[in-house]
Amino acid sequence: MLEIGQSYQYDFSFNQGDVEAFARLTGDTNPLHLDPEYAAQTPFRRPIMHGLLGASVFSKVLGTIFPGEGTVYLKHEIEFNRPMFVDVVYQAVVTVKELGEKFTAKIETLILDKESGKVTISGEAMVMNRQKVPRFKA
Amino acid sequence: MLEIGQSYQYDFSFNQGDVEAFARLTGDTNPLHLDPEYAAQTPFRRPIMHGLLGASVFSKVLGTIFPGEGTVYLKHEIEFNRPMFVDVVYQAVVTVKELGEKFTAKIETLILDKESGKVTISGEAMVMNRQKVPRFKA
Repeated sequence: MLEIGQSYQYDFSFNQGDVEAFARLTGDTNPLHLDPEYAAQTPFRRPIMHGLLGASVFSKVLGTIFPGEGTVYLKHEIEFNRPMFVDVVYQAVVTVKELGEKFTAKIETLILDKESGKVTISGEAMVMNRQKVPRFKA
Repeated sequence: MLEIGQSYQYDFSFNQGDVEAFARLTGDTNPLHLDPEYAAQTPFRRPIMHGLLGASVFSKVLGTIFPGEGTVYLKHEIEFNRPMFVDVVYQAVVTVKELGEKFTAKIETLILDKESGKVTISGEAMVMNRQKVPRFKA
């Protein structure tokens, strides 16, 4: 059962093949993600990952590990604080902030560049899980 | 150039192969999305799409059509109001709500079930686009 203050960290990275797969799957072929020559003309200077590909680590962590199987996403406020790049090790950190009614939990969702510690994504998710979140408000 | 009140609609659907591709790419193998027998035991009764796969239509629309190429995602508040299913036609509706400083725009992001008109995802995105959003607050 989740408790307020519990936290889980998960290290991950994506490669350019993952970015291309995300572009094919979603249709987001923005050259900022795919074309090094185009990206070189922007303030980022090299291709950046799709923001939602970076944020998808929370779908994985919340849906398969913490709290895990059976999790239903109710809401997610995602702030894309800094660009994310392929082949960089990031750390997702999820922390239980509140337990609500009806098996819901508010979870802080952060991604840090593992080396620099800088935050690349911040925000909060609301999830429901009938097996792993208490039924009543804590 | 974007103007306040402008709106764009985009019809789309995903199939189970897309859900499986999203699960492989992100690692979110929650059986709620993949296993009909598991899903049959839940209130949804059949597999539901990953919420972020549904929301990824905004990555496509904002990044390639409206305002299009060069869009950078700054923030997205996504509310998953109702489950989404494969092989159903949905309509994404994006509407310009505010134009901010430094080429930023606040855009309402909705997904409706095209047949019933019911909202499945709601929320607001903040994006930046140096070519297609005015430089100064409107």
